[in-house]
Amino acid sequence: MARNTQVTADTAAPPVTSILARFVSSHPSRGWSDAVEREAHRTFYNWLGCAIGAAHHEAADAALSAVQLLEPAPQASVLGRRDKVDMGSAALVNGITSHTFDFDDTHLKTIIHPAGPVASAILALGERNGSSGRDLLDALVLGIDVACRIGNVMYPDHYDRGWHITGSTGMLGAAAGCARLLRLDEQQTAMALGIAASQPVGLREQFGTMTKPFHPGGAARAGLMSALLASKGFTASPRALEAPRGFVQVASDKRAWHEVTDELGQRFEISFNTYKPFACGIVIHPSIDACVQLKDKGVTPDQVERIELRVHSLVLELTGKKAPKDGLEAKFSVYHGCALGLMYGHAGEEEFSDAVVRDPRVIELRDKVRATVDDSIDEAAVHVAAVLKDGRRIEVQVEHAIGSMNNPLSNAQLEAKFHALVHPVLGQAKASEITHACWDLAALPDLRSLTALCRP
Amino acid sequence: MARNTQVTADTAAPPVTSILARFVSSHPSRGWSDAVEREAHRTFYNWLGCAIGAAHHEAADAALSAVQLLEPAPQASVLGRRDKVDMGSAALVNGITSHTFDFDDTHLKTIIHPAGPVASAILALGERNGSSGRDLLDALVLGIDVACRIGNVMYPDHYDRGWHITGSTGMLGAAAGCARLLRLDEQQTAMALGIAASQPVGLREQFGTMTKPFHPGGAARAGLMSALLASKGFTASPRALEAPRGFVQVASDKRAWHEVTDELGQRFEISFNTYKPFACGIVIHPSIDACVQLKDKGVTPDQVERIELRVHSLVLELTGKKAPKDGLEAKFSVYHGCALGLMYGHAGEEEFSDAVVRDPRVIELRDKVRATVDDSIDEAAVHVAAVLKDGRRIEVQVEHAIGSMNNPLSNAQLEAKFHALVHPVLGQAKASEITHACWDLAALPDLRSLTALCRP
Repeated sequence: MARNTQVTADTAAPPVTSILARFVSSHPSRGWSDAVEREAHRTFYNWLGCAIGAAHHEAADAALSAVQLLEPAPQASVLGRRDKVDMGSAALVNGITSHTFDFDDTHLKTIIHPAGPVASAILALGERNGSSGRDLLDALVLGIDVACRIGNVMYPDHYDRGWHITGSTGMLGAAAGCARLLRLDEQQTAMALGIAASQPVGLREQFGTMTKPFHPGGAARAGLMSALLASKGFTASPRALEAPRGFVQVASDKRAWHEVTDELGQRFEISFNTYKPFACGIVIHPSIDACVQLKDKGVTPDQVERIELRVHSLVLELTGKKAPKDGLEAKFSVYHGCALGLMYGHAGEEEFSDAVVRDPRVIELRDKVRATVDDSIDEAAVHVAAVLKDGRRIEVQVEHAIGSMNNPLSNAQLEAKFHALVHPVLGQAKASEITHACWDLAALPDLRSLTALCRP
Repeated sequence: MARNTQVTADTAAPPVTSILARFVSSHPSRGWSDAVEREAHRTFYNWLGCAIGAAHHEAADAALSAVQLLEPAPQASVLGRRDKVDMGSAALVNGITSHTFDFDDTHLKTIIHPAGPVASAILALGERNGSSGRDLLDALVLGIDVACRIGNVMYPDHYDRGWHITGSTGMLGAAAGCARLLRLDEQQTAMALGIAASQPVGLREQFGTMTKPFHPGGAARAGLMSALLASKGFTASPRALEAPRGFVQVASDKRAWHEVTDELGQRFEISFNTYKPFACGIVIHPSIDACVQLKDKGVTPDQVERIELRVHSLVLELTGKKAPKDGLEAKFSVYHGCALGLMYGHAGEEEFSDAVVRDPRVIELRDKVRATVDDSIDEAAVHVAAVLKDGRRIEVQVEHAIGSMNNPLSNAQLEAKFHALVHPVLGQAKASEITHACWDLAALPDLRSLTALCRP
């Protein structure tokens, strides 16, 4: 049986596993600009609010119930709950909750939600080991750099073929962050990345189910365990990322290796991180923003004959659910998003409740939305026209939705988002205390004082 | 940005996730022939010997040290050691040890080593829950059927692109087996398969490192956790295997869906399982067998000028290491295998020790082996010629190596292999007791009496 074993193997790839291992193990603490340091704080804070906010979601309950079958040692906190579990399980559950509302951060160049896998892993490990806030921030910046740079190498091909890139690069970011936090040397860090390379977690087919948020959680756990294994001498290929049968070539036909090395240590991918104002898939945001603007122009639901959207094909591919059955599915419905924008002027987690999704007034408005594919429009943009019953046509073009790189949330807006998520779980006093601790994270001597605040 | 999102999507795939879930949850206990039942016993017994045999390998020490950082509850046994750990970690570590010597079973149609992921998961769960031997055997047959049928769907393309198929189908077999053992219904079984589908574990680049045996261990753990999550109501796509963005289409261009349904419930893939006589990569076995035959014909190392091999290209691709540095690498050296066959007449784990690999007499003989690719020869065959210093040329053609489907190990040979592996770890008395328990597994009321025998 003769057969073609791999037509597109690239045998001349640079040693990116080693390059990243050296970078992660040797880059100086806080070796970046104030802007990068600020974004690290914002990334962590936004992630923490999302994780606490979903602490009692049914996905969290189910995951925690399964984990408790292992009778885990109380090493690390399940954020927003009284439970403590082993650090691997904490990484898993906090990774799940942080992504459950689809309200977390986005590295727009790759659609990676980088904090989920990385922060979930390093906070669990750091709490267990009593690490400092400074060490956590270093691990966060470096871990996210690794995940997003590998994402840059493979995006869009890797994503297009069906990988949920958050979990299929996140295990590398989590491994890198945990290796840094454990102060592994270059060699052991390469092994941690290598072990993690065998464990991508995530398929796009899972969108709309609990397994979507499982992906960053599973990647967090896999990366953490990879670093622990490496710290005990477990071995992997030192070319696990770049070899012809290594992760990148197995999982992507695009292999832009230069993305690993371009300005490494000078440009940090966390600089390009963004935070969602709306609790749903990022590609819906321009449409919601546009419908909020229609509302601001005085358009009301009862005036509307129909809403016409022109969007990139990816928007409908990812979020084309016309009749979502529940809140989870509604996060992947651009039609529902438009209805929320026009009806409420915002789209937080409450607006993705099953009750709102099944509200006849929302359904009526949702059914008036027509979407047309136009690939001359950017994925992050939208053209919306409201055709009114009186014959008027009111148009809105959104090039940079609120929350995007060009129109980012302010710290005050992030705080408002955090408080809305955390109040129902921990109350206002703790939400404020956590907020202060997070903005001052670089000076925190021991992460356990922070995680203690995250318990009811 | 216009782009091709997936050229080869198959939107008409049959609902194989549901089909397999129904099969696993509803097929009658012991609903197969005596021959299948016999192979289930042989598969389990062979796997157990491999796992116990490697209990003190440095890979086991490293993995267990890492796992112990989680302070695991003593739920399930690390086979061949005194340690007990949580059932997820037991699945991981036993999966690692069972594959560490590369001495375990092989489903030759796909080169899947199916017991590693499946048996490691179901024994850990079954020990924890006090399941019977009968229930374990049912879970083993059905779990292996799921993993190998999905392997048949994707092989060879999936393997050729670089996936270590044992771990990238094994999570499905482990999930299926654990779902069966937990008596999950069809719906929950589909969710278990769906959650597992997002967690393939394994890259061929890792061959020759500890991460190779990590793959079945990681897949065992992932499958077990997927079943536990499903049992608590965690959800996944009910089309996670077959959808355009589901596992099979993401990970393979070959999608022979009929392999799932052909004679489902009548033909069992465990029937095609084989057991290795030699402690190394399966594609080397014909070459070792041929060199053993040369020895039997009276050829001695000092007579040899050179050994000429003609093999399929895959043999050199997988096992072309000319100068292996240590025992692990030697398992991927057809050159080393030939030297062992001619020098010792066998090639057990001892012959892959670092000492033997560095023995100057072995190196001298290894260096006399020349390999030529000939893709008209089957992957499972070899042509070997010994060219002697006196000018004679002695040829051996092996079509069906010992241990292959057409030339299987007898139960007595399996026992000899088991005892050689287990004596150094547990002694002869326990090895004999375990042997009796395994041949009588269908009648065992509680697996804990078996796992107790596997502790020193």
